[in-house]
Amino acid sequence: MSQTPSGALEARIARLEAIEAIKSLKARYWYCCDSKDVEGVRDCFLEGPIEIHYDGPVELVNHRDRLHEVFKNVACQTHIVEMHHGGPPRIEIHGPNDASGRWGLVYHLMDTKAQTISVVGGYYDDEYKRVGDEWLISKARFKVCSAVTYGWKDAALRLLHSGPSLPA
Amino acid sequence: MSQTPSGALEARIARLEAIEAIKSLKARYWYCCDSKDVEGVRDCFLEGPIEIHYDGPVELVNHRDRLHEVFKNVACQTHIVEMHHGGPPRIEIHGPNDASGRWGLVYHLMDTKAQTISVVGGYYDDEYKRVGDEWLISKARFKVCSAVTYGWKDAALRLLHSGPSLPA
Amino acid sequence: MSQTPSGALEARIARLEAIEAIKSLKARYWYCCDSKDVEGVRDCFLEGPIEIHYDGPVELVNHRDRLHEVFKNVACQTHIVEMHHGGPPRIEIHGPNDASGRWGLVYHLMDTKAQTISVVGGYYDDEYKRVGDEWLISKARFKVCSAVTYGWKDAALRLLHSGPSLPA
Repeated sequence: MSQTPSGALEARIARLEAIEAIKSLKARYWYCCDSKDVEGVRDCFLEGPIEIHYDGPVELVNHRDRLHEVFKNVACQTHIVEMHHGGPPRIEIHGPNDASGRWGLVYHLMDTKAQTISVVGGYYDDEYKRVGDEWLISKARFKVCSAVTYGWKDAALRLLHSGPSLPA
Repeated sequence: MSQTPSGALEARIARLEAIEAIKSLKARYWYCCDSKDVEGVRDCFLEGPIEIHYDGPVELVNHRDRLHEVFKNVACQTHIVEMHHGGPPRIEIHGPNDASGRWGLVYHLMDTKAQTISVVGGYYDDEYKRVGDEWLISKARFKVCSAVTYGWKDAALRLLHSGPSLPA
Repeated sequence: MSQTPSGALEARIARLEAIEAIKSLKARYWYCCDSKDVEGVRDCFLEGPIEIHYDGPVELVNHRDRLHEVFKNVACQTHIVEMHHGGPPRIEIHGPNDASGRWGLVYHLMDTKAQTISVVGGYYDDEYKRVGDEWLISKARFKVCSAVTYGWKDAALRLLHSGPSLPA
C-alpha cells in the first residue's frame, strides 16, 4: 500500500469538492433565473465589485445589487418565460479560493406579448471566488453562438405555458 | 503535512462518490426512457412505496411496478418519440443512505400521429435512497415551467425520425 | 476512526479525478466543435488508430488527422452553424488508463443556405484512454434517436445568428 501523506490526499479531495460546489452553484443560479427569484440570483454573486457581461440587451453589471434592476426590466415581466439549460462544464481550480469555468447554455426566451420564441446557444466564461465555505460568481461573460427567433402568430404553433409568473 | 484522520477523508470521498453515483443513476434513467426500456426505468426506482409525480397527463405513481402501465399507455406507443435532456443538478447528501437532488430538464415529445412536437422545460425534485451499494430514486416530482407545442402539418417542417420503436 | 490505508483512499480519489477529467474533456470537445476549432477537436482524440462513427453523412473516421477533412466539408462551411449541447453522462472507469462513457446530446444544425434548422437528439457511446496525465477519446459512436428539420423560408421564422464563421 502506498504511503501518500494524508495532506496530499486532502488537497485532491478539496479540489474535487470545489468543482462540485461550483457546479451546484451554477445549477442554483439557473434555477433562480427560471424561477424569477431575483434575491436568489443575487446571492450567487460575490459581494463587492463583480463583472457580469451578457451579449445582447443587458449592459455590463458591476455589482450584484444592480441585478434587481436588470431582472425587473427584462426577465421579471409577466409576458416573459425563460428557460436556462446548462451543458457540461470545464472547471479549473487555480487556488484554494480561485476558480474559473466554461459552460455551454441553451436558452429559450418566450415572449407572450410579441408572440415569439427565441432559442439561443452560447458559452459562459466565469470566474469564482471562495468566501468562507461558499463559492460565489465573481465574473460571468456570456457569448452568443447562435440565435433563432420563431414567430408563432402565423405559424402552426401553440403556446401552453405554466411559467411561475405568468398571468392566468 | 496535515494529519487528518483517514476516516474523515473517507467520509468526504464517500460523499463525492454518492453524488457521482446519483448523477449516473439519473443519466441511466433518462437513457432508458428515451430507449423505451421500461424494465430499465423500473430498476432505477426503490422497491416498495415510492412517489412519482409528473405534471401533466401522468397520475401519481406509488410503486415501480406500476410504471409499466404508465409507459405502455404513453411513451411506448410507436407514434411517440421522446427526448429527455437533463441539465446540471444540485445534489445534497443528507446521510449515508439519504440524498436529494434538483435537476433541470428539456423534454421533447414528438407525436407522429397528431403531427406535433412539444418542447417542455421544467425541474425535478428528487429523493434518493441507498440500498446496499446502489442508489435508487425514492421520490421524483417534475414541475413544468414552460411548454410549447408546434404543429408541423401546415408549417414548413419535416420530421426525419429514427427513434427506437418507430414504424418504418 | 477507521484506519483505511491511504493507498485505498488514493485509488478512490483517482477514480473520481478520472471521471471529472473525462467530463471536462468532452465539454472541451463540444466547445471546439461549436467554435469550428478543428485543431482543438483533433487534440481531444488519441494519436494512433481510433474509431469515430457518427450516424448520418459522416463516414467512419479512423485517425484524428482525418478529422480536418471531415470538418472542412461539413461543419466549417460558412453557412453552417452548429450547437452541441451535452447531457448528463454515465462514466465507467475500467482501469487506470481505460474508461467508457455514455452521453446524451441535443444538436442543432443551422444551414443558412438551405434555410433549415435541424434538431437532433441522440447518444454517444465513447471509449477513453489515458496517456501520461491526459485522458483522450479513443472511440466515439453517436446514434441518432430523433431528428427534426424545420424550414424557415415559408414559416414565421427569423434567424439572428452570430456564429463564429458566418458571413456578415
